[in-house]
Amino acid sequence: MAKDKGLIPQSEDFNEWYNEVVLKADLVDYGPVRGTMVVKPYGYALWENIQRELDRMFKETGHSNTYFPLFIPISFLQKEAEHVEGFAPELAVVTQAGGETLEEPLAVRPTSETIIGHMWAKWIRTYRDLPQLLNQWNSVVRWELRTKLFLRTTEFLWQEGHTAHATQEEAEEETRRMAGVYATVLREWCAIPGWEGPKTESEKFAGAVYSISYEAMMRDGKALQSCTSHYLGQNFAKAFDIQFQDKDQQNKYVHTTSWGFTTRVVGAIVMTHGDDKGLILPPRLAPIQVVIVPIYKAETRETVLPAAIQLAEQLKKMGIRVFLDDRDQYSPGFKFNEWELKGVPLRLELGPRDVEAGTAVLASRLGGKETVQVSELPNLLPGRLEQFQHDLYQRALQFRDEHTWEVDSYEVFKEKVEQGFVKAFHCGEKDCEKQIKAETTATTRCIPYDEPEAHGSCIRCGKPSAYGKRILFAKAY
Amino acid sequence: MAKDKGLIPQSEDFNEWYNEVVLKADLVDYGPVRGTMVVKPYGYALWENIQRELDRMFKETGHSNTYFPLFIPISFLQKEAEHVEGFAPELAVVTQAGGETLEEPLAVRPTSETIIGHMWAKWIRTYRDLPQLLNQWNSVVRWELRTKLFLRTTEFLWQEGHTAHATQEEAEEETRRMAGVYATVLREWCAIPGWEGPKTESEKFAGAVYSISYEAMMRDGKALQSCTSHYLGQNFAKAFDIQFQDKDQQNKYVHTTSWGFTTRVVGAIVMTHGDDKGLILPPRLAPIQVVIVPIYKAETRETVLPAAIQLAEQLKKMGIRVFLDDRDQYSPGFKFNEWELKGVPLRLELGPRDVEAGTAVLASRLGGKETVQVSELPNLLPGRLEQFQHDLYQRALQFRDEHTWEVDSYEVFKEKVEQGFVKAFHCGEKDCEKQIKAETTATTRCIPYDEPEAHGSCIRCGKPSAYGKRILFAKAY
Repeated sequence: MAKDKGLIPQSEDFNEWYNEVVLKADLVDYGPVRGTMVVKPYGYALWENIQRELDRMFKETGHSNTYFPLFIPISFLQKEAEHVEGFAPELAVVTQAGGETLEEPLAVRPTSETIIGHMWAKWIRTYRDLPQLLNQWNSVVRWELRTKLFLRTTEFLWQEGHTAHATQEEAEEETRRMAGVYATVLREWCAIPGWEGPKTESEKFAGAVYSISYEAMMRDGKALQSCTSHYLGQNFAKAFDIQFQDKDQQNKYVHTTSWGFTTRVVGAIVMTHGDDKGLILPPRLAPIQVVIVPIYKAETRETVLPAAIQLAEQLKKMGIRVFLDDRDQYSPGFKFNEWELKGVPLRLELGPRDVEAGTAVLASRLGGKETVQVSELPNLLPGRLEQFQHDLYQRALQFRDEHTWEVDSYEVFKEKVEQGFVKAFHCGEKDCEKQIKAETTATTRCIPYDEPEAHGSCIRCGKPSAYGKRILFAKAY
Repeated sequence: MAKDKGLIPQSEDFNEWYNEVVLKADLVDYGPVRGTMVVKPYGYALWENIQRELDRMFKETGHSNTYFPLFIPISFLQKEAEHVEGFAPELAVVTQAGGETLEEPLAVRPTSETIIGHMWAKWIRTYRDLPQLLNQWNSVVRWELRTKLFLRTTEFLWQEGHTAHATQEEAEEETRRMAGVYATVLREWCAIPGWEGPKTESEKFAGAVYSISYEAMMRDGKALQSCTSHYLGQNFAKAFDIQFQDKDQQNKYVHTTSWGFTTRVVGAIVMTHGDDKGLILPPRLAPIQVVIVPIYKAETRETVLPAAIQLAEQLKKMGIRVFLDDRDQYSPGFKFNEWELKGVPLRLELGPRDVEAGTAVLASRLGGKETVQVSELPNLLPGRLEQFQHDLYQRALQFRDEHTWEVDSYEVFKEKVEQGFVKAFHCGEKDCEKQIKAETTATTRCIPYDEPEAHGSCIRCGKPSAYGKRILFAKAY
């Protein structure tokens, strides 16, 4: 059984390690329909903890939750030219319902800009109806051919925010604000460092004026786009005729935004922090922050178990997410492996001698063991959990920085982009990006806000750089 | 504009009153596809408050949230004979995806027993894997012909709980426990009285051994089935081959349950409590519990508004959901009507003389106005909100009891069932139920747990009663 839970080492086959760990740690399973996934309780609890923080921040920034229907008439998707081009190939289509063939086929929503645009055209009359600050938690369907659990499945869970504003300035501010909310959750809750910035023209959302993303580095050096926030300009407003009468009595088109954060973040957490033993979860999000493993034989059971139960109760009351593993059928060693696989940050071991001495052994999933006074745990644990959160972020940041290079030669670019991120100058031309992708499989990830002003020649073609700074390249999930 | 918000009286056309109030109070709108709805922020906030309580109670009773895919292979639905018979006519079917025709068409889930059964067959090996206590929040699709906002839409939001157990006893206990959780939320949070009990054979869920429901009375005397909890026996276990090795080394089929609570509860709240002025929302669920309407002219604005803002901040800090209506463009009278329409339980009016005297006028959506000291409000309001919650329930209970009759003659039955609920004896035969439905449009609602033991002759055919008590009949939504 212990062998059952063993993983292939990351260094041997990162891709296979990932597939094994998400399945064996009970985060997820394959659904019966090709490309679908079942999010299991442990994986869902992680997602719920992320949801709770995002939802709180959305409400603090004035947004309301709503629900728009799953089915979108195909004709809606065709109204915005770039949008339909981007999404048409991936649509799942309902053609029959209630035993009859539908007059107009219905797309299962791949994203809701069009159906929300349709409703806004009806709801928005004057500037007093603006801004519209909406969000919804749901699932969307995009029929992808190459799928990977959490990262790319034909159906995935997400939230999609949609807002409409009277002015471009307000809409752009919103686009940036929500990208900022995402960056906060990724950095402070998921412990995932990343580069935030606009995508290049070739990589933006289908229908956007521009898109901002957060690009994180996985432990194989590849990039994972962890969320996006789009300024849609008046593209959808014009396609759906969303006009309002402004204070100056003029009819104007609204400016819209949309922004999404998906269950792929679970994959990002796994691949940013995990190691050959399994997951390592950030304490702020971990469904179980502390696991208590009582260590006893038949004759010491009645000494150890009540003490463990008492400790678990005490920590629970403090608001710590604690789990007491009192399963009799498994050995402590088996349990240690299992909770390491599942990435629980801290483990408390409690044996008969510990109970006698009023101590416990505190082990960290990041390494290290110490003997602590049980009476001190209420004081000790909150700080240890925060320290763990901090250390995990620093560890990921160090890894990222060690695998990021400023590069000015295409030969070095090709070599380095196999190992991590490259910051380089680029001419800004789509064809040149396409060439780089064809030659290296790397793509532009974003134009990082944090990158200082600089000028140089395009890494591939030598033309002057277009962005006033180096931009980020990587192979991406 | 005020006229715009006017409603047809309930007594004139209850059905039309309902349609007007849910739309004008901004709970919901019609979606673009026939039979669908858009849940707007105000309606969704109400649903979220219900969700939060249910979710908390599910977790307290040991359940975990999960997510199973939207798409179910048609062949899965065909495995349980009664289930497919019940759901096949209402399926929406995806036949094309990713630009190609699918080999096997996919049903958009009408409910998830089958796909969860499929996964359980894979996950469950021994008694140690039991019980499985799962829940998911999602939407389902049932292609109904006659639709009505919140009550019956082709897509609706709900939660579906699914559990698997080693024994019948445990599964039946679970079925009853979750019906009890629902009854608690309906009574204590929604302020909706009802009768809880098993459905008759004709009215049970497609695939269940039996179903328990909670039957509430709307203000037109009709019944609304507000939730259901099903004991599924081994029906799905056998259809999907969900076996486990028990402690005695024998392979056995599990016993499963399922239970669901939907957005139709919003319709139930509207039709249980609403009046000719609009909604009346239970304070425990109301998105806005107290609205503050400042009353001022240009010269008193600077006196009144800061006091109103201060009061709003103070109440917010106490955890009261308060809204300050400081819109300059509307008169106080307009605002009173609007917040009455939207069912806000308590209104505080604050004028210049009030500010001077340190008072405010407190008006209840259930009637009555009083002048109160602003300094007393923090002490006063929590109690008033609880009192409102209590009064609302009592009002509904009284209405229900005044419209419920014990009847022993079929002639009186026919007359009374036009006005409310009837408790009568029944022979238990399906054909007899069918006849009653054909002759009166009334159906059996449930066999109430609370009903005392009694024996008599079937209200229609005169045969001996089958249930050992009177059962509940009504016309139903």
